[in-house]
Amino acid sequence: MTASKKPQFYRRTLPETCISFCSTEGKAIFKEAMLSGHMDGYFPLAAQFRTQDEPAYCGLSTLVMVLNALEVDPGRVWKGPWRWYHENMLECCTPLDIVERQGITMEQFTCLALCNTLSTTTVYVDQNTNVETFRETVMRCTRSEDEFIAVSYSRKILRQTGSGHFSTIGGYHKGRDLLLILDTARFKYPPHWVPLPLLFDAMKEIDPETQRPRGYLVLAKASTQPQMMFQLNPVLGV
Amino acid sequence: MTASKKPQFYRRTLPETCISFCSTEGKAIFKEAMLSGHMDGYFPLAAQFRTQDEPAYCGLSTLVMVLNALEVDPGRVWKGPWRWYHENMLECCTPLDIVERQGITMEQFTCLALCNTLSTTTVYVDQNTNVETFRETVMRCTRSEDEFIAVSYSRKILRQTGSGHFSTIGGYHKGRDLLLILDTARFKYPPHWVPLPLLFDAMKEIDPETQRPRGYLVLAKASTQPQMMFQLNPVLGV
Repeated sequence: MTASKKPQFYRRTLPETCISFCSTEGKAIFKEAMLSGHMDGYFPLAAQFRTQDEPAYCGLSTLVMVLNALEVDPGRVWKGPWRWYHENMLECCTPLDIVERQGITMEQFTCLALCNTLSTTTVYVDQNTNVETFRETVMRCTRSEDEFIAVSYSRKILRQTGSGHFSTIGGYHKGRDLLLILDTARFKYPPHWVPLPLLFDAMKEIDPETQRPRGYLVLAKASTQPQMMFQLNPVLGV
Repeated sequence: MTASKKPQFYRRTLPETCISFCSTEGKAIFKEAMLSGHMDGYFPLAAQFRTQDEPAYCGLSTLVMVLNALEVDPGRVWKGPWRWYHENMLECCTPLDIVERQGITMEQFTCLALCNTLSTTTVYVDQNTNVETFRETVMRCTRSEDEFIAVSYSRKILRQTGSGHFSTIGGYHKGRDLLLILDTARFKYPPHWVPLPLLFDAMKEIDPETQRPRGYLVLAKASTQPQMMFQLNPVLGV
């Protein structure tokens, strides 16, 4: 195949499982979710929403969004006089050239979050993990500006093209049980609302890299008495 | 001065002329503006909100936001299989190494917008331009997803640190006459609401580079019958 015949795309069409943030229906959902109080966490995350610079940087860009939304001072300069988080500063656990080729696993995401001083609860979605616990976590975090959720899931289960992916959750619509996914692959899909149970199913998929299910992380600024939880054994559930 | 003594910052505090998007007051303003119908243009812009990668890239990043929010297909690949706009693809009018050092003027922004197929109305805010015309334009564009406003203004007039800057307008609160500024220097300031008359004054400042006042641009996808207006003479007003 010659270079000129390589497939190329201007975005992808969202499957019917997803409702675009920018559509008339998406805006109506946003408005109702905001009036119900489940968009409080949206504002700091939206203020740091970014496009992943590399196809496999979804995990790094998701973590950068959370670090900047939580206003974590990296203690070192990014550019000019500014201390600020950028993907290129997240190299403590895995070399960036490997991340660029392979992306990161839940374990590596957890390692990076801890390295960068976050309080981190990592949950693998296995048979002992139930959707109600996840929903309670979503309801708590979307009413807060102090805790954010990063999810690791299979795009296939959402009927999207591609495979494993990381995103943050930007809001929740209780009446329709919908989550707002702030997808950093903005060249592919706009932000979108998805049914919470479907995203939960998409976290159950076994990651072929680790042979473990995927899942979610609750991320917060570490307090002076850090309460870090790192659930190493996926069969324990939460 | 040794390298270690160079001044460095973790963000800057917003002056009292500005209300943070993420504050309790900012959220209340957002909610009221949304219910009044002046946040329709917010959604596609917010979905493409970015951080400028270089201190002088405010103009390029603002234009990238608008091009991607309007879903303009650049007709060439950015990365992987994806056709998508990135700052590094905006090199038709001025070499990027010069932009990196000097930023761009209103003229160069206009040239870049036209090169990339946008319908562009460029308004220099001189003594013949009135605030009411600007307010009418803001009211029209914030109710639309087809036209966005980029503003070129002096940060000093807003009592911010720094000098000339480009941003997009993300929304309008009619009752309080406030604009939402989606500032791409997110390492410095969060998005913020500012009084419309104050931003108008900040556009009047003479750009030392061009000896012309600053101003604003109304940007849209070109129709099949492009209606491009480029007001070359700043004394004409709109």
